Amino acid sequence: MPKSWLNKIKWDEQGLVPVIAQEVGSNDVLMFAFMNREALQRTADTGEAVYWSRSRKKLWHKGEESGHIQKVHEIRLDCDEDVVLLKVEQIEGIACHTGRHSCFFQKLDTKDGVRIWETVEPVLKDPEGMYK
Amino acid sequence: MPKSWLNKIKWDEQGLVPVIAQEVGSNDVLMFAFMNREALQRTADTGEAVYWSRSRKKLWHKGEESGHIQKVHEIRLDCDEDVVLLKVEQIEGIACHTGRHSCFFQKLDTKDGVRIWETVEPVLKDPEGMYK
Repeated sequence: MPKSWLNKIKWDEQGLVPVIAQEVGSNDVLMFAFMNREALQRTADTGEAVYWSRSRKKLWHKGEESGHIQKVHEIRLDCDEDVVLLKVEQIEGIACHTGRHSCFFQKLDTKDGVRIWETVEPVLKDPEGMYK
Repeated sequence: MPKSWLNKIKWDEQGLVPVIAQEVGSNDVLMFAFMNREALQRTADTGEAVYWSRSRKKLWHKGEESGHIQKVHEIRLDCDEDVVLLKVEQIEGIACHTGRHSCFFQKLDTKDGVRIWETVEPVLKDPEGMYK
């Protein structure tokens, strides 16, 4: 299969593209990560989200250890062709390594006139038990 | 007001943080952009999204020309403290400079065995008329 669809993407100087993962149904934004060409190719081919881990410098099949796989329903590209949006079914409803539904669990609030980041989502599963 | 909430963010080497804008209600992902400290401070202070334009190298009050302002309902931060999520009310329901609701209007599809990016969202307003 020709790879012109991959060439349409404006990969950054590291060969990466930022990716937003959004849950099908709730439309919740679950997480943000990066992909390289191979990660996006595998994601499209297998129907499961594969990212590029910048810290570990390798392909990262999301959920490979925790079981929290993302089944990909749609892959979208933005107007500038430099950001990808995945619509996914999140297995077990847990995307975050902290055991929460979404990585975006800190909300800016004001307490006694001071702005603070407040944790507003519960831990659904003990992260200690999530990774082998 | 102390700025410790801004210090919690892991700004990148350019002093920027990636920002996802999501529509309150529909939960649609509208766009992706960047902020520097001043942009996020102004966003929090004014309740309207202010980004950092990397191409124009200046603060960008979203909607300043088009009128498509984003009223900010919530500001969230992810687990790694290096990505911001805004929950916004999108004035006129148009976030994209192409006159579409969302910037993520291209969907990966397969036609005759070939993967293509297909435009799946309508233009709601002629972009010619959007900018002065």
